[in-house]
Amino acid sequence: MKFHRRGKSTCVFEQMPVLVSAAAVVGPREGKGPLGAEFDMVYSTTLLGEASWEKAESKMLRQAVDLALAKANLDESDIDFLIAGDLLNQIISSAYMAREYDIPFLGIYGACATMSEGIGIGSLLVAGRFARYVIVASSSHHDAAERQFRYPTEFGHQRPPTGQWTATAAGAVVVGVKGKGPRVEAVTIGRVQDLGVSEPNDMGSAMAPGFADTVWRHLQDMARKPEDYDLVLSGDLGRIGSLIGRQLLRNKGIVIDEIHQDAGVMLYDPSPEVGAGGSGCGCVASVFSGKLWKELYNRQYRRILLVATGALHSPTACQQGESIPCVAHAVSIVSE
Amino acid sequence: MKFHRRGKSTCVFEQMPVLVSAAAVVGPREGKGPLGAEFDMVYSTTLLGEASWEKAESKMLRQAVDLALAKANLDESDIDFLIAGDLLNQIISSAYMAREYDIPFLGIYGACATMSEGIGIGSLLVAGRFARYVIVASSSHHDAAERQFRYPTEFGHQRPPTGQWTATAAGAVVVGVKGKGPRVEAVTIGRVQDLGVSEPNDMGSAMAPGFADTVWRHLQDMARKPEDYDLVLSGDLGRIGSLIGRQLLRNKGIVIDEIHQDAGVMLYDPSPEVGAGGSGCGCVASVFSGKLWKELYNRQYRRILLVATGALHSPTACQQGESIPCVAHAVSIVSE
Repeated sequence: MKFHRRGKSTCVFEQMPVLVSAAAVVGPREGKGPLGAEFDMVYSTTLLGEASWEKAESKMLRQAVDLALAKANLDESDIDFLIAGDLLNQIISSAYMAREYDIPFLGIYGACATMSEGIGIGSLLVAGRFARYVIVASSSHHDAAERQFRYPTEFGHQRPPTGQWTATAAGAVVVGVKGKGPRVEAVTIGRVQDLGVSEPNDMGSAMAPGFADTVWRHLQDMARKPEDYDLVLSGDLGRIGSLIGRQLLRNKGIVIDEIHQDAGVMLYDPSPEVGAGGSGCGCVASVFSGKLWKELYNRQYRRILLVATGALHSPTACQQGESIPCVAHAVSIVSE
Repeated sequence: MKFHRRGKSTCVFEQMPVLVSAAAVVGPREGKGPLGAEFDMVYSTTLLGEASWEKAESKMLRQAVDLALAKANLDESDIDFLIAGDLLNQIISSAYMAREYDIPFLGIYGACATMSEGIGIGSLLVAGRFARYVIVASSSHHDAAERQFRYPTEFGHQRPPTGQWTATAAGAVVVGVKGKGPRVEAVTIGRVQDLGVSEPNDMGSAMAPGFADTVWRHLQDMARKPEDYDLVLSGDLGRIGSLIGRQLLRNKGIVIDEIHQDAGVMLYDPSPEVGAGGSGCGCVASVFSGKLWKELYNRQYRRILLVATGALHSPTACQQGESIPCVAHAVSIVSE
């Protein structure tokens, strides 16, 4: 029996699923950042004309889905699965978004690793010939996340330099069996790692071991070296987690410093508020969907490794003295 | 290009994935219920010797996974994916469980529909030849859910007769490419439905439209009638949601009354506390893993339709005046 696997942990595709379109919608702070011009829509307020931040997040996610569908010249009846997840309890941004579409819905949760978990599952469903087209979407919203995970948003609590700023952003990608666009050649789903970091204001450090483990496994499985990739895009280790992640890989003889970038570092100009960088499911989702997809489409890159990283704790777990487990999923994407 | 699909929404398998083992672990109330003797482990307290209910839930889930692996005579190195989800915010029961295994982890969220979402995804990965074995697990814990979703658990708030009792239970199933056991022949992933029910103490009514829609779509896609199934097992509509679900199907000319059972009704003897029946991801997970898997294995049923149903709201969404969207996923399982 033939399996579409290589090494211990990686699924590989003979007929590669195509990322036929991508769209990104962001809030005002993200629009003013270095990538502002890359996004399809920039809102001038974080409420988006809605009555709550939670409803605003769901709307943003819906708009990313609508835009990705429109760019692919598809409508919802063409889509076999809608895969989505976000940071809010019970992933309500995704559920209330999915309510608006007549598409079979798979809810996922991988914290900030959600986008690559979704692109991974979507690619597997397309490559397995269970779907012609799948749409994958993920979001986060700073104001909604802040009051859920930390303090009342209006309080504006001061965070340490290791803290990260949850992005108000959504991204969506259409994965299809055919079409023009970047192609997914392999997926490495990560294992949950926990090196004992228990400080929720230092998620980059907590997530770095997951990142290093998945990148290492992917390279082992594919029998490749870092130089086989033009870019390793993590999301969202931030400045501190990036240093730790690279060091952990260096300890295993893998040097990615030249080709590594982090979505959390890319999204904002440095500021005390932003701290170590951006975070949240929407951060890497919007950076990939807004910027990287286009650059792959235009063949500015030949091959990239998208490695979204998630911290799998909750406030309740941290209050109970638990450390922060993390996971990272890698998707290898090549230009046409 | 050939796709493994039938009708608009259903994936079908030529080489059917096998449910090679199943295990269920429950709390004291579930152990004293009508199915008590069916479960692999029954705990005498809801703390399981842990320091918190949340840690207890994660432990219960881990034990279900360990037991399912042991029964299948497999160890973690044989398993290509661990798919799990639960009701707690950020699915921490699953994340902290997954930390204990060296298996690639896919976190999912489908509320009480999680088990059939997981068996669905697991079957697709196995049938697509991306995995030899996948383990799927899901749990809920009454005391942990109560304080997260409603009131302090110790308060013991009185619920209306439409209310449902979150089960303290976990179930796990190993899906494999080969072996002895019941086989998955088709999967119908549901669309999110919302008929405007906004009362979180009446989740059965909120979930009934999702159940009816998915059963209807499945039968349409497969060109089958209810009599082609020996059992339609919903989970967890409870007594009231079951009546509504059947009526919604009857309105479409589909009568399932004779063959329909609900995991939430099966799990407990009627009592004012239990209300309309059990609920929670662990309810249908434990009823299927503890009872139905064995009955399929022993060929007491020829073909069943497992239809786990989930209410996709959150306390925050309800406080903001939102109604309760729901989803149901159907898995058609045949005995060997």
